[in-house]
Amino acid sequence: MNIAVIGSGMTVFGELWETSPRALARDAVKQAVVDSGCDKKNIQALYVANMLSGTLGTQGHLGALFAEELGLSIPAYTIEGACASGGLAIHTAVLSILSGEYETVLVLGVEKMTDHKPEEVSSALMGAGSNEERLAGATFPGLYAILARAHMEAYGTTEKELASVAVKNHFHASCNPKAQYQKPISIEAVLHSSCVADPLKLLDCSPVTDGAAAVILSKKPTKNSAVIIASQVATDTLGIAERKSLTTLAATTEASYKAFAQASISCKDIHVAEVHDCFTIAEILALEDMGFVKKGEAGKRIGEGTFSLGTAKQCVINSSGGLKACGHPVGATGVKQIVEITDQLRGRCGKRQVKNARFGLTHNVGGTGATAVVHILRKESL
Amino acid sequence: MNIAVIGSGMTVFGELWETSPRALARDAVKQAVVDSGCDKKNIQALYVANMLSGTLGTQGHLGALFAEELGLSIPAYTIEGACASGGLAIHTAVLSILSGEYETVLVLGVEKMTDHKPEEVSSALMGAGSNEERLAGATFPGLYAILARAHMEAYGTTEKELASVAVKNHFHASCNPKAQYQKPISIEAVLHSSCVADPLKLLDCSPVTDGAAAVILSKKPTKNSAVIIASQVATDTLGIAERKSLTTLAATTEASYKAFAQASISCKDIHVAEVHDCFTIAEILALEDMGFVKKGEAGKRIGEGTFSLGTAKQCVINSSGGLKACGHPVGATGVKQIVEITDQLRGRCGKRQVKNARFGLTHNVGGTGATAVVHILRKESL
Repeated sequence: MNIAVIGSGMTVFGELWETSPRALARDAVKQAVVDSGCDKKNIQALYVANMLSGTLGTQGHLGALFAEELGLSIPAYTIEGACASGGLAIHTAVLSILSGEYETVLVLGVEKMTDHKPEEVSSALMGAGSNEERLAGATFPGLYAILARAHMEAYGTTEKELASVAVKNHFHASCNPKAQYQKPISIEAVLHSSCVADPLKLLDCSPVTDGAAAVILSKKPTKNSAVIIASQVATDTLGIAERKSLTTLAATTEASYKAFAQASISCKDIHVAEVHDCFTIAEILALEDMGFVKKGEAGKRIGEGTFSLGTAKQCVINSSGGLKACGHPVGATGVKQIVEITDQLRGRCGKRQVKNARFGLTHNVGGTGATAVVHILRKESL
Repeated sequence: MNIAVIGSGMTVFGELWETSPRALARDAVKQAVVDSGCDKKNIQALYVANMLSGTLGTQGHLGALFAEELGLSIPAYTIEGACASGGLAIHTAVLSILSGEYETVLVLGVEKMTDHKPEEVSSALMGAGSNEERLAGATFPGLYAILARAHMEAYGTTEKELASVAVKNHFHASCNPKAQYQKPISIEAVLHSSCVADPLKLLDCSPVTDGAAAVILSKKPTKNSAVIIASQVATDTLGIAERKSLTTLAATTEASYKAFAQASISCKDIHVAEVHDCFTIAEILALEDMGFVKKGEAGKRIGEGTFSLGTAKQCVINSSGGLKACGHPVGATGVKQIVEITDQLRGRCGKRQVKNARFGLTHNVGGTGATAVVHILRKESL
């Protein structure tokens, strides 16, 4: 597989009260088109990733809506898979190019969350969970708290180790002008923030975010582009009660295993990765499930700075700040991960640039692991 | 393009108060799997078409949900494009096979509409329209009524001609045991039914329907399968006010033009077609826009029986009863069209069988023509 990311763009992530979803989309796509240097007329299809527009805003049919808004009279599709919508849209777009039907396609991830009451957003997000979980009154922080508690019991993971994920990612975000949060935080700040769902505190949780991200994919690499060399999806049960284990997300393991096989590399070759850290425990699960560290060791290693800018041994994790601190506009997240890795491989990340990054990875999760999408990218040196 | 439909199935369409979306999906998929004769384990990906689950039921992430329900631990996606969701899912699944990533995939279209209040359904359906249309208080019957009125003024189309579409399709539905309506109706019954949005009366409108349809697509045709030889999508503005013409759906014209070119045949070669008749005027527009008849002549020709079972000259239109009388479970419709054409090409339609059908077509529209999807199928004679 060899699909080039020839252009990328994203809006600032944050609480963008004054900005409409249409304006977010125009902003991200304009950047991607300018970046690609290609005429908008060459774009042959549009894949829109969004989760909540129907539930919260009653607007469906976003493919056609954004095609019109962007002045593109081309086939347009909406792809949904909860918080993995962006990753699934990238995967679907990659396959559409491999099919031979299209040469150049646009993927747009967009989500506007702050226009709605917090309890509405919380309820809408549970659309990604199982019926039983909703009936039990579970929320996503609650479900991930169960996973965190199980991990702590199985491996002795501590609240301080969880907090170290947040500290690392807020530090990275402080080097990213487009991140929702611009200031580093301390372990103490995380540990003393209000409890959301024990053991997860406010600063263990990713925020509610508005934002959009866009990439233009092509079968023809351009100079200094990044190339997608693996794109894999895996599925698990919707609810966590049906799983064999609460300390691993099997879909992550499966998708990453297939992706590494497809790319013919291992996680030791990855220099920079964006992983799905909707909660601090999620980054710990991701690093262990993909094989970056042994099971049970992620918290300790993150706390030691093994995956931080400046002190990383091998690989920097969530250089953008991740979902945790760059922000998590649900449908946009998986696309923004590709934007960040592309920027890293092209050496355009300024203060947060990972030196000599040649291989990058993105990992996008839907729900509590019912869907996982893994992409591996390589720096193209034409 | 040569993608085989190796298995197909659908539930009875109708007001299925006692049946859950999960049960609908199981029923349709079980039929498709049995029909294909292939082991469920060979299915490599699942494409779910649905429009309203998020808006009406707050359940998202349907890919993973139905994968779990069906016992399939495979990559799963939700594709949405309003009433064209089913057609878009088929198209996306076709491309995924052409990509070489998958050999055999399952497409499931499913919609449960009767669990909700009529005004909620009506409002949710407007998610397919433009913001301006919603703010103006427009409904889909109202928007199609505007198109009907424009057509009547431009071409002298009469209310009786509109009614003849309903009469034909109810007659066809009376030959289809799975159709929502089982009785023929008269022109007078249509003309005297209550006015919904002048000139459209109750019997000019497709109903609110529950149902599911499923097909298994493969790159390897089996004996007596149908083969998709063209799959094309086109997009237009979301709102009708932005269009150049109100008497044509440009997306239909474009998608069908590209599909006929891809299949290297013309509409004269088509023996049986399922077209998007959400309202009687929609079938008239479809036949004219795809070139089955000259502009302005569809109503007259339909009234003469040119496209009816038993009296058709060349091609039978909506042998299933169409959206109008077989029913219109939004996300399932585009998939069910493929089921009907596959059944016709395989000679399994009993009383409504079109003799010697070798080429078939499906035409699926989202909104008032913002999305159009056209597939052309050929009887495989292994």
